[in-house]
This record gives sequence, C-alpha cells and structure tokens, in this order.
Amino acid sequence: MYSIGKKAIIASNNKINSKSKNKVLNQYIKLIKKNKNLIIKKNNEDVKLAIKRKLKSNLIDRLTINQKKINNICNAIKNVIKLQDPTDVTLKKWKRPNKLLIKKISIPLGVVGVIFESRPNVTSDVSCLCFKSGNAVILRGGSEALNSNKILVFLFRKALKQNKIDPNYVQLIEKRERNYVNFMLSGMFKYIDVIIPRGGKGLVKKVQKLSKVPTIGHLEGICHTYIDKDADLKMAIKVVHNAKLRNTSICGATETILIHKKILKKFCNPILNKLAINNCKIIGDKYLKKYYTGKIFLATEKDWSTEYLSAIVSVRCVNNLESAIGHINKYGTMHTDSIITKNKNSANKFLKSVKSSIAIHNSSTQFADGGEFGFGGEVGISTNKIPPRGPVGLEQLVSYKYEVLGQGQIRK
Amino acid sequence: MYSIGKKAIIASNNKINSKSKNKVLNQYIKLIKKNKNLIIKKNNEDVKLAIKRKLKSNLIDRLTINQKKINNICNAIKNVIKLQDPTDVTLKKWKRPNKLLIKKISIPLGVVGVIFESRPNVTSDVSCLCFKSGNAVILRGGSEALNSNKILVFLFRKALKQNKIDPNYVQLIEKRERNYVNFMLSGMFKYIDVIIPRGGKGLVKKVQKLSKVPTIGHLEGICHTYIDKDADLKMAIKVVHNAKLRNTSICGATETILIHKKILKKFCNPILNKLAINNCKIIGDKYLKKYYTGKIFLATEKDWSTEYLSAIVSVRCVNNLESAIGHINKYGTMHTDSIITKNKNSANKFLKSVKSSIAIHNSSTQFADGGEFGFGGEVGISTNKIPPRGPVGLEQLVSYKYEVLGQGQIRK
Repeated sequence: MYSIGKKAIIASNNKINSKSKNKVLNQYIKLIKKNKNLIIKKNNEDVKLAIKRKLKSNLIDRLTINQKKINNICNAIKNVIKLQDPTDVTLKKWKRPNKLLIKKISIPLGVVGVIFESRPNVTSDVSCLCFKSGNAVILRGGSEALNSNKILVFLFRKALKQNKIDPNYVQLIEKRERNYVNFMLSGMFKYIDVIIPRGGKGLVKKVQKLSKVPTIGHLEGICHTYIDKDADLKMAIKVVHNAKLRNTSICGATETILIHKKILKKFCNPILNKLAINNCKIIGDKYLKKYYTGKIFLATEKDWSTEYLSAIVSVRCVNNLESAIGHINKYGTMHTDSIITKNKNSANKFLKSVKSSIAIHNSSTQFADGGEFGFGGEVGISTNKIPPRGPVGLEQLVSYKYEVLGQGQIRK
Repeated sequence: MYSIGKKAIIASNNKINSKSKNKVLNQYIKLIKKNKNLIIKKNNEDVKLAIKRKLKSNLIDRLTINQKKINNICNAIKNVIKLQDPTDVTLKKWKRPNKLLIKKISIPLGVVGVIFESRPNVTSDVSCLCFKSGNAVILRGGSEALNSNKILVFLFRKALKQNKIDPNYVQLIEKRERNYVNFMLSGMFKYIDVIIPRGGKGLVKKVQKLSKVPTIGHLEGICHTYIDKDADLKMAIKVVHNAKLRNTSICGATETILIHKKILKKFCNPILNKLAINNCKIIGDKYLKKYYTGKIFLATEKDWSTEYLSAIVSVRCVNNLESAIGHINKYGTMHTDSIITKNKNSANKFLKSVKSSIAIHNSSTQFADGGEFGFGGEVGISTNKIPPRGPVGLEQLVSYKYEVLGQGQIRK
C-alpha cells in the first residue's frame, strides 16, 4: 500500500508538457470508445451484484454505465482538453529595488487522493482534471463500482503507457476492504498532499475527521434563497422554483427560503404554490402558517439545519436583511446563498456579509457548479475557509512557488 | 477559554474599512511611544525571571525590549500602514454566456491563532498584519514573555477601543499552563480558521501534529546552495558566504553546499576558505576531504538532513545538475534553494525541478523573507504544498469568495 504512494510521487516528479497531456487525454477518449462494450460489460457485473445486494434504485442508477453515460464521459474529457494547462503560469512578477526579479509560478499540488462512492464517471472526470493539472492521483472508489473503476483506470493507464508516460500518474486502490480508506487517510499521509472526498455526508464526515492532510470538499450544502422586501415577485417565483426543484439532490439546491416580513403576505402564496403544485413539501414557521393557504407543516429548530436533498423546503419569515444574514451565517454551511432584490445596497450588503463561498444576487443557487462557472469541470465544491473555496476546477488544483532571479545579489 | 474563540468570531464579523484600520495602527504606534517606559518595565519583569530561571543568553536577548526594539516595533507597524488593504479586492471577474457576472473577491480568513515563543515583538507584528488583513487574532506567547505580551496586547486593544472597534480583534491567552496550547489546537478548532506556529522545531512539530485546523509555517529550513559547473567563482564565493554566515540562525540560511564535481578541485578551496576564516565549521564528504586543504570533518548521512542554525556547513560533491536536484528533493524541506550558474538552461531546469517554495538563481538563500520580497512584513514562511507557500505576508492572510450577479437567471 505504501508503494502506491511512493509510485505516485515518482510519477508526479516527471513534468509533462501541455501537448503531451492532451495527447494522452485524446488517446483515453479513443480507448473508451473502442472498449465501450467491455466497459458496459464490466459495469454490468457491478450492477448485477448491486441488485443482488438490494442497493437502492437511485444508487443503481448512479452506478449504471450506458451508451449515453459513455458519451458524457467522453464529452467531459473533451472539455478538459480544451482548457488551458493551469501549471507553469506566471501568476505575478515584480522587481525589487536590488534588481532581484521575483516570479510567482503555478505548480501542481503533487499527489491527490480521491475517495468517492458509487458513480464510476468520477473515475475518469477526476483523473483527467488531476492529470491535466500535473497531479498524480490515487483513487479509492466505492466497492460496488470496483469492476467499472478498474476498467476505466486500466484504459487511462494504457493511454499513459502508449504515450511513454509513467502510468502511475493514475492509480486505483483495488481492495474492497474499508480499512484501506482509513489507511489512505492516515498511514499514507506522507505521500498524499490533498484528499478530495466525493460522496454522501457519512463519507465526507469520516474523511474530514480522519485525514491528516488537507481535504477539499464540503460536508453539506444548506443553501438559502432570501426574498427581500424589494424583490421582484415574478423573478422570485421563477428563481426559487429553479433553486429548489431543478435538481433536488445536488449540493447547490436551496433548502431554506427566507422571506422578509413586509412582503410575506403578498409573496408567500405565489412562491410556495409554485413549489407545492410541483410536489414540494412546505415546512414553515408560525408566520408562514398564518398567511400561506396551502398545505404546510410547522418547522422545528432542526429544520433550519437540515439538508433535505429532496422536494422538501423549509421557509422562515425574517424581520429584515440583517436577520436574513444572521440566519444564513448561523445555520448555513458557507456553500451558496442568494438574495432576490431590486435594491442594490441591500444586495451589496448581503453579498459582503454572508459567509458563503458563493454569494448570489438575483439568480438561482443551482449555479453553484464548476461547469456553470466556466471551469470546464470540477472535482467538487469546497466550503473551507482557506483556498480553494467554491467550485474546484483545474485552476484550483495547483499551488505555486517563487522563482527568484538574481545577478549575484547578497542580503545586507 | 471557549469564550475567547466566540469573542474572536464576533469581532471578526465586523467589517472595518482600510481608513479605520490605519487609524487604529497609527494610534497603536502613539500608545507604544507614550508607554515605552511602562513596556520596558514590564519586559524587565520577564527578563529578571528569565535570568533567575537561567534561560540561555540568546533567548534572553530575544526576550529583551529596549529603546531600539521599540523603534523597530513602531517601524514595522508603519510598514503595515503603508501596505494596501488586501481584502475586498476583485481578484478576477468574468461574464458567462448567460450574462451572469462572476467576481472572485478577497476576504479575511476569519480567526487566526498564533502560537509563539520568546520574542515579544511577534505580538505586535502579527497582530498588526492579522488586523490589517481583517482577521481576528488569538495569541498564545511563551510564558517567559507574558508580561511583555500583556502590555503590548493591552495597548493594541486600547487603540481599538479608542476607535470604537471591538477590542476582541486581538486577544491574548494569559494562562501560563502548557495545556492551553493543546486546547487551542484541538478544543477551540471550531473557532479558529488557521494556526500559525512561530518558534523552534519542537513547538512547530507539536502544533503541526496536534492542530485540527490548517497550519501555516515550516518545521525546518534545510536550504541548499548548488555551485554548478558553469558558476562564476567570484559570485559563488560572495553568495555562499552571505547565504551561510550573514545570519546563521534564520530559516533561510544555507545548511548544505552542493558542488559540481567538474569544478570541485578549483572552487572548493576559495569558497570554503572564505567560510572557514569566518569561523565556520566545514563538514564534507570524502571528495571534499580529498581536495579541500583546510580543516574538515567527514560528513555522515545524518548531516544532509541537519539544520545547524549555526556556523556549521555540510558540503557535498555532486555528479551533475540532476544529482543536485535529486539531493535537494530528497533531503531538503521545500524551503529555499539556490543555484549559482551562468548557464540559463541549467538555471531554468533547477528552478523548475526543485520542490522548494522559493527557488533562487544566482543569489543568496537569505533572501527568503517577506520583507525582502516586498511584502512589508511576514507572519512566517510556509513550506506547505498547498497555498499559502513561501513568505506569508498581508496578501497571503486572505481567502476569497465568489459574488455572482444576475438578473433573474435560472439554471437549465
């Protein structure tokens, strides 16, 4: 097991230029297309086992690879090919009075460990992003997707070998035992620079607790949409509907709606009815109960810190902008929060005061996504206080060094 | 103790504009000057106790505050006042095809914990840098400097109060017990965003091991100067002398000299003699022993990973540039390493290949310093793989958030 870490470091020590990186990624697409039947066959072994083990249908959906998913995988790789190589970029340079020229240059992080659950497309997505940013990657996928992950990693390594590049840029831990996750988090920490957990709350919590190296990710996305007293009603209805219901299972989905008390009476019915007729369960505080005419459940304290990840929303009346900000900073998870208002001062105060990684004005929280940000993909969304924060794409998978160019200068 | 953490968060939630920040810092200078006798008196209590406890004379030197040190403290604060406020800066902005405007904005990290040893000037230096970057700071100084730290923190808090700013922007843990350090590292981790250890290897090791939040710093600075076969002899003599002996106790001091075998015979005597006549002890490998005519001790494997922090240097003959890079990446600590050569290709290869946070061409490793980089001060030098790396000044004490400005956009 240690040897996987050592091999990753050795691989990552070889600098690869952008052209070679893209050649590998193009070759990977070719190999995936050529071996699509094999991939689907291997994936089918996983799916059969999952059905036998009675996994939930949504997990089996995520696990299944079909022709459409293979196309998606290939398109995601094409996107990564199009992106600028984020390494060896001069981020800044300046000259000191003593004529020393100092350059701040982007470099790979080194070795990235990724621990993820059922979706095998994470294997290719994350491998491509890590490889293009010059990082070696050690993958530990869910045991239920082992055969799918094995073939996808095998093909990436083949593409590397065919281009005479150390295949250990991409390695998969193939053991099914759970204690290998623990080992990756603690025993291997000397070899891994950053851990990215991708999966449910249980996994992320475990990784954040046990990891001895920095983790990039988020535990929960308790996202809010705040309807200000100066909001446009039509916009509020449209944006809230999208923020809550477009996809309820993503981390950027709104979980709590905050409504300013001044417009509560007028706004709550049209906004919440639009959700209710689309089968969203409404949980509201006592003020909502007073004015909302549809079916409503009374919220408890616990609702404000619950990530439903389904068609359920909690709704609270707030006295003013400050109360909304206070609520978000108390119950939120520094993920993504939005304000709907025509008042620019209120919007500005909100954007500056919420501790969210992504603060939004007049738009849907569902835009919390590397693709939507133009990053061409993401390994996840980070709610850490220290960088990287928000969507973590190619440009966030790098670190930097200083190159100092002199002509014999000595320090006084 | 928890309350210190809570108070720090509450303080840091108040945004302060640059003008007010500078007013506080100017007031702090005034209060230090006005109370200089009191500061020296309080410091004297610490010094007396230290003498009684038979602390080493270099530690007592570091501890002592005199008129000159007060001037230095005030000048350091003046430097921080001159620096641009690093927060609320638009680091990047771009528009998406759907007209969403995305801005990446710098924000404070939040609450910074600083654990440091004897030097009381760290109290004012670090407090000023943290405050100007919008961070609340919790200080835990060495017990031997408690009275000095108390008065310096008292005056900063006074300057804050006089400007109607929450004094809990700067707090000092006044208990002498060591277990408060442990508590700060583990129990208080919910309230602290980043820990900065400043002090000896023992302290830093402990902090890095126990801290549940990211730490910014370095354990050791095993810095190298590599004399390439294409080096200019005069430059090599001058730069090596400065890199090793200008100040042997700083982390950027060179600990190992690597010399290309082709020029070993010609270069080793003039370079090492210059060190030896300045009382530097030479520890060399067997090739050095063969050619160097001065007094030399035979190096053991352990010497290559020893940070002497004194007038001792280890010297090794290397076969070529690649061996030099290999040695540095094996024994170095990713701090600061320099190459002396007239060959631009060799220089470039070296700069790109060493894993150092700071890679230098034709200049002294002693330039590893926030002041020398033009950062106007530093809280330390980080050898982490993830940012911040290298000297950590004002601009490195911030994080960022995304502000997304829309006109009712919804995600498809």
